[in-house]
Amino acid sequence: MSIPARSTAPLITLTTDFGTASPYVAVMKGVILSRCPKVQLVDLSHDIPPQDVKHAAYFLRDAVPWFPAGTIHVVVVDPGVGTSRLPLCVQVQGQYLLCPDNGLWTLIGTPQPPVVHALTQQQYHLPVISHTFHGRDLFAPCAAALAQGASQHDLGPSLQDWVRLDTPAYVIADRSIQGEIVSIDHFGNLITNIPSRVITQPAQCVEIGTHRITTFVSTYGLARDHEIVALSSSSGYLEIAQVHGHAARAVAAVVGQKVVIHH
Amino acid sequence: MSIPARSTAPLITLTTDFGTASPYVAVMKGVILSRCPKVQLVDLSHDIPPQDVKHAAYFLRDAVPWFPAGTIHVVVVDPGVGTSRLPLCVQVQGQYLLCPDNGLWTLIGTPQPPVVHALTQQQYHLPVISHTFHGRDLFAPCAAALAQGASQHDLGPSLQDWVRLDTPAYVIADRSIQGEIVSIDHFGNLITNIPSRVITQPAQCVEIGTHRITTFVSTYGLARDHEIVALSSSSGYLEIAQVHGHAARAVAAVVGQKVVIHH
Amino acid sequence: MSIPARSTAPLITLTTDFGTASPYVAVMKGVILSRCPKVQLVDLSHDIPPQDVKHAAYFLRDAVPWFPAGTIHVVVVDPGVGTSRLPLCVQVQGQYLLCPDNGLWTLIGTPQPPVVHALTQQQYHLPVISHTFHGRDLFAPCAAALAQGASQHDLGPSLQDWVRLDTPAYVIADRSIQGEIVSIDHFGNLITNIPSRVITQPAQCVEIGTHRITTFVSTYGLARDHEIVALSSSSGYLEIAQVHGHAARAVAAVVGQKVVIHH
Repeated sequence: MSIPARSTAPLITLTTDFGTASPYVAVMKGVILSRCPKVQLVDLSHDIPPQDVKHAAYFLRDAVPWFPAGTIHVVVVDPGVGTSRLPLCVQVQGQYLLCPDNGLWTLIGTPQPPVVHALTQQQYHLPVISHTFHGRDLFAPCAAALAQGASQHDLGPSLQDWVRLDTPAYVIADRSIQGEIVSIDHFGNLITNIPSRVITQPAQCVEIGTHRITTFVSTYGLARDHEIVALSSSSGYLEIAQVHGHAARAVAAVVGQKVVIHH
Repeated sequence: MSIPARSTAPLITLTTDFGTASPYVAVMKGVILSRCPKVQLVDLSHDIPPQDVKHAAYFLRDAVPWFPAGTIHVVVVDPGVGTSRLPLCVQVQGQYLLCPDNGLWTLIGTPQPPVVHALTQQQYHLPVISHTFHGRDLFAPCAAALAQGASQHDLGPSLQDWVRLDTPAYVIADRSIQGEIVSIDHFGNLITNIPSRVITQPAQCVEIGTHRITTFVSTYGLARDHEIVALSSSSGYLEIAQVHGHAARAVAAVVGQKVVIHH
Repeated sequence: MSIPARSTAPLITLTTDFGTASPYVAVMKGVILSRCPKVQLVDLSHDIPPQDVKHAAYFLRDAVPWFPAGTIHVVVVDPGVGTSRLPLCVQVQGQYLLCPDNGLWTLIGTPQPPVVHALTQQQYHLPVISHTFHGRDLFAPCAAALAQGASQHDLGPSLQDWVRLDTPAYVIADRSIQGEIVSIDHFGNLITNIPSRVITQPAQCVEIGTHRITTFVSTYGLARDHEIVALSSSSGYLEIAQVHGHAARAVAAVVGQKVVIHH
């Protein structure tokens, strides 16, 4: 099934771990604009931590569902560039993602089964493919081709298997729920993998390292200055925050650390 | 009074303290593009220091006047998100700002009285409003609604009162003018609140901490390497800079620090 | 020779060392959008290290060739702002660069002789020119004028001389090639000035400081974790990288440091 073309300019977004002090993002924009002059280019992030596929996966899980049908997302967080990992075009939620096959798209909710193709048709690539910059040589020109009207099927053969990201499970016990920190945001807020909807009993405290958090609020402004609080994140997961502070520093927390809700 | 629609694509700018490693900016862009596909989206900054309303206010004072009539600025620096502070739509200088009622827009010059409305009409919001992310749930969809042709009056009732930012006054004495540092720019230049136009007598020196600056220039390149100089900033205020250096580190200055011009 | 106008919206890119916490980039965008509402604005970078003209020059060398004919690049890395250095409009590779005359554009390959004009025609400037912000007062409005159809000749007189950047030469000896590190990218990869095409004999090792690198690969993923390897960069130069690491930290390297290939 192909997605109807947008009536307005085609929309290509960029998400990378390239930073912008290096020319790599600029190069990809040049390739896309040379091949699809009418495109609307939108930066999502170039500050994904270097080679952090998991960070990218949670980022996309939260961001992609808000975009309109037909959006083309180019995502290059690619520790395996130049090795045998395949470059993909994935159709999910009526949108396309062009990205390496390392699982970074697989946390996005997929009401329909995803449609996955390998980007192997060379006429859509740059004439010479480097071993170190597939963002420029493969992903950017294939995104431009899609934006110019190529179908996903043109880009390469359909795949039935792909890398899936292992995400940590949360565990519901009789008097507790155990999960972990999956990301830390710009404000130092700790985002866990425990969906707020599974917290059905009143909680006594949230345990993280040597800390016991006993203040539960609906938003940051409702506790004392610098108090550490538990709340539901804007994406619907248990979040630990410090009011007007930086919870990650305050409790010395890191991604992957265990979090336990005690009832 | 409503502002005539732009003949070109509607223009929405984004200014936040979200950084871009987190998905929040991307989410807001998705909401806007889903509701107003033809919009021209322009990033102003996502590097406002976290929850620094004053920094945002000086940023907007300097930036907004350069934008064309009809521009819609979404500004989310919002320590009070989810509390009783109102979300606003402000019309000033023929442009709109959608922002929390914390004073961040109130340093912008207003030749005409500003027109201020509360964003309370729920049909312009997302169906579910979180307590922690009004950028996504209120400000982005209301901006898209304005861009799609809604009037400011549609978004909610007119307000006659709002939070004003206290800004430090400068004091002109017989032989001195006393002010303070209100922002430090990316180059470490110290921007004060003393307008260059009030410095009508020749100055002997500028005192800041234990430093006495006695070199007055029109631009950075006109003094010796690493010399600390006083000049008029590009926005017309007394500025302290270090040639090819970083004045804030050189004189260990911070925002709020006292600055005295001695005649 | 003038470049035919683009059939789609005119394309203006921005490259600065301004960061985005300060309002300077936003101001330039406002000036451009006020004078050319239909423009497509694209950020290349605002993270050029402050006043680092060489970094900007290598950035542009790698990025500009990928952009379509007619692109207008505004580049403001300008330690000499307000002094006698001229502001330029340069036509190279069918594109325009508006930038100070400090050599930052001179590493871009120029199959045709470049066409260089000084931006001296005041009707294209802002009415008042500051001494410290020519990005706002000169470069942005001249870029908007070009985008609106002015010719390069309208902006000011043709120049036959301009500042050229000194770039380090590499030296090919009998059993070695000596060069240096010219930039360090976001991943800590060390990019040298030695073109891969001149490395025609098998290399024994690459010497950098006290380190001897003996692993030569085609891409990052083909060596052991944290191994330091030599490869050809995506722009075709000798590059030193650490697999899943940061080579610049691993070998304590800096820009300008000597690199020797031993055969």
